[in-house]
Amino acid sequence: MSTLVTGIGELFVGDAAGTVMEQAAFVVEDGRVAWVGPAAEAPAADAAYDVGGRAVIPGFVDSHSHLVFAGDRSAEFAARMAGESYAAGGIRTTVRATREAGDAELTAHVARLVAEMRRQGTTTLEIKSGYGLSVADEARSLAVARQFTEETTFLGAHVVPEGISAEDYVALVTGPMLEAARPYASWIDAFCERGAFDVDQARAVLAAGAAVGLKGRLHANQLTYGGGVQLACELGLVAVDHCTYLSDADVDALAQSGTVATLLPGVEFSTRHPYVDARRLIDAGVRVALASDCNPGSCFTSSLPFCIALAVRDMGMTPSEAVSAATAGGAAALDRTDVGHLSAGAAADFAVLDAPSHVHLAYRPGVPLVAETWRAGQRIDGR
Amino acid sequence: MSTLVTGIGELFVGDAAGTVMEQAAFVVEDGRVAWVGPAAEAPAADAAYDVGGRAVIPGFVDSHSHLVFAGDRSAEFAARMAGESYAAGGIRTTVRATREAGDAELTAHVARLVAEMRRQGTTTLEIKSGYGLSVADEARSLAVARQFTEETTFLGAHVVPEGISAEDYVALVTGPMLEAARPYASWIDAFCERGAFDVDQARAVLAAGAAVGLKGRLHANQLTYGGGVQLACELGLVAVDHCTYLSDADVDALAQSGTVATLLPGVEFSTRHPYVDARRLIDAGVRVALASDCNPGSCFTSSLPFCIALAVRDMGMTPSEAVSAATAGGAAALDRTDVGHLSAGAAADFAVLDAPSHVHLAYRPGVPLVAETWRAGQRIDGR
Ligand SMILES: [Zn+2]
Ligand SMILES: [Zn+2]
Repeated sequence: MSTLVTGIGELFVGDAAGTVMEQAAFVVEDGRVAWVGPAAEAPAADAAYDVGGRAVIPGFVDSHSHLVFAGDRSAEFAARMAGESYAAGGIRTTVRATREAGDAELTAHVARLVAEMRRQGTTTLEIKSGYGLSVADEARSLAVARQFTEETTFLGAHVVPEGISAEDYVALVTGPMLEAARPYASWIDAFCERGAFDVDQARAVLAAGAAVGLKGRLHANQLTYGGGVQLACELGLVAVDHCTYLSDADVDALAQSGTVATLLPGVEFSTRHPYVDARRLIDAGVRVALASDCNPGSCFTSSLPFCIALAVRDMGMTPSEAVSAATAGGAAALDRTDVGHLSAGAAADFAVLDAPSHVHLAYRPGVPLVAETWRAGQRIDGR
Repeated sequence: MSTLVTGIGELFVGDAAGTVMEQAAFVVEDGRVAWVGPAAEAPAADAAYDVGGRAVIPGFVDSHSHLVFAGDRSAEFAARMAGESYAAGGIRTTVRATREAGDAELTAHVARLVAEMRRQGTTTLEIKSGYGLSVADEARSLAVARQFTEETTFLGAHVVPEGISAEDYVALVTGPMLEAARPYASWIDAFCERGAFDVDQARAVLAAGAAVGLKGRLHANQLTYGGGVQLACELGLVAVDHCTYLSDADVDALAQSGTVATLLPGVEFSTRHPYVDARRLIDAGVRVALASDCNPGSCFTSSLPFCIALAVRDMGMTPSEAVSAATAGGAAALDRTDVGHLSAGAAADFAVLDAPSHVHLAYRPGVPLVAETWRAGQRIDGR
């Protein structure tokens, strides 16, 4: 059973060449793109689906989210907007609520946020633990996350919880907690930041994860300059996320390592921190991704279109670079080549926009332009 | 036939007292709010509608939009983001496309944008002309707009079109064009700005409109300091819009006149101009509104939730002030007391949020949180 998707006013292919085709079509077969090209040259297929001249882009690949949590921190957000500064310690508020929540409540909450992401065009997403911070609660968080994605990340090293020394906690994370988390995790991560974990602690966590086959990624240089980004590059991690405070040496290390710099402008929006100069990174040859960092503390957006609009307005990216960073860039940050683009052979994961061009994602900020979301050739937005 | 809307986790009433009630309910009868109060005290009604613990706010009142146009200016947007500055002359591009468009095309385009606004919670909106700039095309633009709202504004004085002197054009606007526009317009407006119309020209336009019964509003101080805001206050206009560049004397004039300052942060977002310090205005006693300014040149958002998020992040407003400015504030800017709040007697125009609180509109930027939009007690979001 093959389906010809046709009537595409503009197709943003998402390949390395930056191909944008007008009057395009593609064929979906067995959940993959079997052919892509000009509509006039389309091969025969068993069925056809006409998108009526609208733009089609690859589904977004959101490589950084913290969806497994309970509780509401909107009051803390309002207080921060009224002048208080963001402190990593706020994480502990969510840890308490998450530990108290039942499995069904946690799962339902993640399901609600995943559905919200799908409606906004996200077809692949990563989900981290990090609000359990006990052996049982980290394992449980990852088991919940695993129901929604294979891209699950063990972030026991999010912050040191109350009642334990940092040294003892790192031993717990790299020992029993890692062992309990391992069956449900594909990745390991740490929050390398003043107030969280230092470079040596992050290195120990990543090494322990690597020893049991987890791929590494790192939260680094979000709130201050520090050694996290260079650690990530030295270890050859797939991605290092935030990169808000970067020295020239950090940029050089990123460019030379091939580690993807995952930029999270929703955090900068919601904490009033300075935006990352993505232009500086791209011009230096760094591979960049855009992700939501959807979490209850520093950034509760789930919208990649919103992140794209910020990237164009405040980070020096062109609309094309921003869409690419939220699709193929996100895929690179998850070590994936099968998603984030619509070349032949890729997964048939795509979004149909209520717009004639991908540029409208930046030109029309805040407007819910994703009309349809498709994954493996199936519509998944629930509308 | 009365309906009890119940299960409201948080009701943002939108009254002058800033009432926010938890566990609230209201009764809708004949399209109006017949009663509002604690759920436990709700009177009997013919039917009930349970919103399942979600937050309910008044429908947004978008007091400033330019929806009647044709053509696509996304390439100009992308160029501006890449470094070119915004010039009012870009309006002429849209004028050409609008004049060339057929009535059915123009109407369909407005219908699409109005539907998009409704899905985002807007229940009352103003629509301006201003891309016709000829007697026939201004009248036609307003006739199209009038199919969607009573709040139509004649903005012949948007920019001086090619091929006519400013003096001759003002004579046309205040003479034959006004006469042709009058049957379809409730308001008159002018773009008082360097490169558009000066204070004397704007005064002449507003006086001509007033003489035939049109209420006045004004675009002023968007790109530069100037006399527009003080002109609006001197004339006692209902609203003056943009207010990006304000002297202390401008702020004093606004506070003393009661003229509503309509702030349009989507413009600042999409042109990278400085945001208005709404805190300064509110603290000085100025009544403020938030509106979209949805237009193809300087700001193509239709999202009041997006404007609320910007107002909280960048303009010093609290979430409550921002929601109020986009509801009751917008109503004040349209000289309306029947909409923009959910006190007894008001229109039953409301939005149900996929969120427990109005704060989430700022806490969750870019996320389409409006789940349902109701106008006069009828659901209008088409979902
Ligand atoms: Zn994170
Ligand atoms: Zn305007």
